[in-house]
Amino acid sequence: MKKYGFGVDIGGTTCKIGLFETTGQIIDKWEIPTNTAEEGKNILSDVAASLKAKMTEEGIKKDEVEGIGVGIPGPVRGGGSVSVCVNLGWKNVHVPKELEEMMDGIMVRAGNDANVAALGEMWQGGGKGYENVVMVTLGTGVGGGIIVGEKIVAGSNGAGGEIGHLTVNPHDTIACNCGRKGCLEQYASATGITRLAKERLAKEHETSSLDTAEEISAKAVFDAYKEGDKIAAEIVEKFAGILGKALSNIACVVDPEIFVIGGGVSKAGDVLIDAVKKYYVEAAFPSCKDTRFALASLGNDAGMYGCVKLILGE
Amino acid sequence: MKKYGFGVDIGGTTCKIGLFETTGQIIDKWEIPTNTAEEGKNILSDVAASLKAKMTEEGIKKDEVEGIGVGIPGPVRGGGSVSVCVNLGWKNVHVPKELEEMMDGIMVRAGNDANVAALGEMWQGGGKGYENVVMVTLGTGVGGGIIVGEKIVAGSNGAGGEIGHLTVNPHDTIACNCGRKGCLEQYASATGITRLAKERLAKEHETSSLDTAEEISAKAVFDAYKEGDKIAAEIVEKFAGILGKALSNIACVVDPEIFVIGGGVSKAGDVLIDAVKKYYVEAAFPSCKDTRFALASLGNDAGMYGCVKLILGE
Repeated sequence: MKKYGFGVDIGGTTCKIGLFETTGQIIDKWEIPTNTAEEGKNILSDVAASLKAKMTEEGIKKDEVEGIGVGIPGPVRGGGSVSVCVNLGWKNVHVPKELEEMMDGIMVRAGNDANVAALGEMWQGGGKGYENVVMVTLGTGVGGGIIVGEKIVAGSNGAGGEIGHLTVNPHDTIACNCGRKGCLEQYASATGITRLAKERLAKEHETSSLDTAEEISAKAVFDAYKEGDKIAAEIVEKFAGILGKALSNIACVVDPEIFVIGGGVSKAGDVLIDAVKKYYVEAAFPSCKDTRFALASLGNDAGMYGCVKLILGE
Repeated sequence: MKKYGFGVDIGGTTCKIGLFETTGQIIDKWEIPTNTAEEGKNILSDVAASLKAKMTEEGIKKDEVEGIGVGIPGPVRGGGSVSVCVNLGWKNVHVPKELEEMMDGIMVRAGNDANVAALGEMWQGGGKGYENVVMVTLGTGVGGGIIVGEKIVAGSNGAGGEIGHLTVNPHDTIACNCGRKGCLEQYASATGITRLAKERLAKEHETSSLDTAEEISAKAVFDAYKEGDKIAAEIVEKFAGILGKALSNIACVVDPEIFVIGGGVSKAGDVLIDAVKKYYVEAAFPSCKDTRFALASLGNDAGMYGCVKLILGE
């Protein structure tokens, strides 16, 4: 194994780049803007220029670099090619082929950003020490990543780990962004928790500190919950019930060793894990009741870590 | 690769044994009784004696045998050890270690019977040509097997592919065999379809050929459905709706290339696939709508095939 690896997590606005030792130690990290103009044709060359500048700066030679892992905000095929990536303006970009050429043959691998973040958390984050991990990212939406035997389950259409779109309420009348109704994301994301809160507050209720909150948000709900607010507790229980049951269904499919919960909503901390786990245990198939839960620990760096793990043969 | 392999599918009553060429061609198959007396202590030695007799009979030498794959009717740990198998009376049996010793060092691998059947269907059955397969077995219960990249997803507690226990109706009042309520198995197994039929027939309805059926069974329902019976159609639609939606949720987790449907109920044939697929497509996440469906084609031999595939490095 060579000494260094690069992780490049390409987002719609910025590319987060990290220089790592292949042992998992991060040495340096920085960002460059993502230039999506002209169908994003300069994105990979901008990345290549930045990597080369860093190598020169640090005196790192080409044959000291094991490879470059790249995270893409959209579906990625097995070999690392992207047919369409709306967030970058890309059509038919073969990431490893193009970037390897720009980087004088240094090996490149690419994966979907949510999946590489899951891989990163497995490698050096909340799932460290485990090989079979389900990562759940509770942000504006609900994302996920399935890791089995240290490998990403990308899925045949790139939809592996699209757990935000598990149908949890077929009777829902409001549409999800995906066009369907009753997706997990509509209840367990920051947006979903806000919705649950507004619905509850619109009904008859005891006085709640949320009544006078400046803004109803997932954070406000969890803050009130920690202060002992009863209405906030009802909202959290509803969220946790829906998510816990959904995770119990996931366990009947891939039966992970651990669920790692990340994303903005997870900043609520252990109280969130405790609430979700309670409903998970209640709903879980008997042999899966002891599955572990942990908070993600790498934050926005998870993708970079996972990109590096990608080039280590996952 | 050596020329021959053995597949040994151990059931609670008989062991189904197959001699294969490692190309996938079956040469011979036979059965021996499973002797569960004395905590099943003679099962593996009976198997070894039968395999040796066959090798002598066919003039096959030890170094012409790639290995022996074994299917077990219960949870199997990664290395092939079994902590408890109620169906065989086993406690703490390390299948590869014990059988290898009896077979003079021929390599042995073991897996759960439902999982190896899925692997068999992927290798030489309804899922041939695909690497990412979800097998659904509709029998007395509902079993399953998840194959990702030609490998079984066994799960950390042996519960990978336990899709019969996905919760599909949290409001169910009747308990499943697993102790929980509203499992897929309660609706989509032969028993479940019979239940749906009896519930429907107990309600007000137009005349149905099922009213005069000798016995209400999944087969009777599908036979009546094929004859155009309206009440049978309602029952089939209800079954297909529940199963189709459950499969759409599985697709959001592992996103297979193909669903392979087997088990006794699948003898209903293409009409079953058509009904389930209709609801699957309706419920599926957009990028998964084109996932293929096929009937299993190896019947009770699927396990033997999968056992052989196990020893070929899956």
